[in-house]
Amino acid sequence: MSSFTPTERTQVKRLPKRGAYDRETVFKILDEGFVCHVGFVVDGQPYVIPTNYGRSGDTLYLHGSAASRMLRTLSEGIPVCVTVTLVDGLVLARSAFHHSVNYRSVVALGTARLVDDPREKREALRLFTEHIMKGRWDDIRQPSEQEMKATTVLALPLEEVSAKVRSGGPIDDEEDYALGMWAGVLPLSVTPAAPVPDLRLPAGTEVPGYMKSYKR
Amino acid sequence: MSSFTPTERTQVKRLPKRGAYDRETVFKILDEGFVCHVGFVVDGQPYVIPTNYGRSGDTLYLHGSAASRMLRTLSEGIPVCVTVTLVDGLVLARSAFHHSVNYRSVVALGTARLVDDPREKREALRLFTEHIMKGRWDDIRQPSEQEMKATTVLALPLEEVSAKVRSGGPIDDEEDYALGMWAGVLPLSVTPAAPVPDLRLPAGTEVPGYMKSYKR
Repeated sequence: MSSFTPTERTQVKRLPKRGAYDRETVFKILDEGFVCHVGFVVDGQPYVIPTNYGRSGDTLYLHGSAASRMLRTLSEGIPVCVTVTLVDGLVLARSAFHHSVNYRSVVALGTARLVDDPREKREALRLFTEHIMKGRWDDIRQPSEQEMKATTVLALPLEEVSAKVRSGGPIDDEEDYALGMWAGVLPLSVTPAAPVPDLRLPAGTEVPGYMKSYKR
Repeated sequence: MSSFTPTERTQVKRLPKRGAYDRETVFKILDEGFVCHVGFVVDGQPYVIPTNYGRSGDTLYLHGSAASRMLRTLSEGIPVCVTVTLVDGLVLARSAFHHSVNYRSVVALGTARLVDDPREKREALRLFTEHIMKGRWDDIRQPSEQEMKATTVLALPLEEVSAKVRSGGPIDDEEDYALGMWAGVLPLSVTPAAPVPDLRLPAGTEVPGYMKSYKR
């Protein structure tokens, strides 16, 4: 897959080796994550709000209540920043200074547009559900006309995008390797526990296969 | 513990029942998380960057390389938003519309100040390390004068702060409860795997006790 072109605003300047601009790296991070942090500005004050998202090709979809302040603000076409971060582990070095975190993140800058077309909107709603739990959409009651109206969907074209990745063990100062403390990585991952059935679920309702094999 | 006073900017307007302003809720979220998303504005464009943090009382500390664009920008005293989000589970409802995520988040607005005082700066560096891994600081080589100089520390007073919490099972439309599909919550948590020792660690170096009991 081709790469995004780094701009003055997306080029990773600190530790440029950690920067990546190819679609493969960017899409893998976006598809593994499911919570993004959306940054926007109101009266000079930045706000950063967590929310879910979906992706189709070079388009990232956001959604929320039509009454949401964030969605209404963004649909006016103001600059937005969407960031997705995956944490892979704690990097425990021999010095405080070289402690770090292994992570993969994507930063996308741009302007979101309101999705008006009912077909694109419905498809985006399918993407949100499938992004959270692949296989779920075909199992559930799909959006009514009224629910469609109550939902605002925004599309952010993925154009000005960069990824940043830190992986591997600690990089210590040469003289610190002689010190005796433990050093290395504590891997972290997001893992599911046993599903908790809804209180009103009839006894014996089987957990669907797509949940049993759930993995991020 | 007392509460933060909600302002026009921090009051949770959508689903106000999910809003919380008491220090106990806010601090618990901040202390369980360890990656925040920092929002700031340059030339009208918001940026959202993931980074680590520490907390002492009503002060949240950020740090980074003195060469970091984000740190330099923030130290000029511009408005900032720091958001910490913990994901607790996927809420699988009977309709697409009522799918949700269980989460706890904190949003803090304000202006960060540069930490100049060497004692406060060193204490903040201790907080960062201890925040990632409690017990680690006493084990490792502590910052040299040169490392102190190469690090910028910022302090954000926690004044304009709110938390937002969604928990529990799906809330479906009454008529949807008769549908037969599985519904409930898939709990998610951040869990550690077996520690990966650094390649240059002498064989037999024991994993410290504070790592064995690591839990977020």
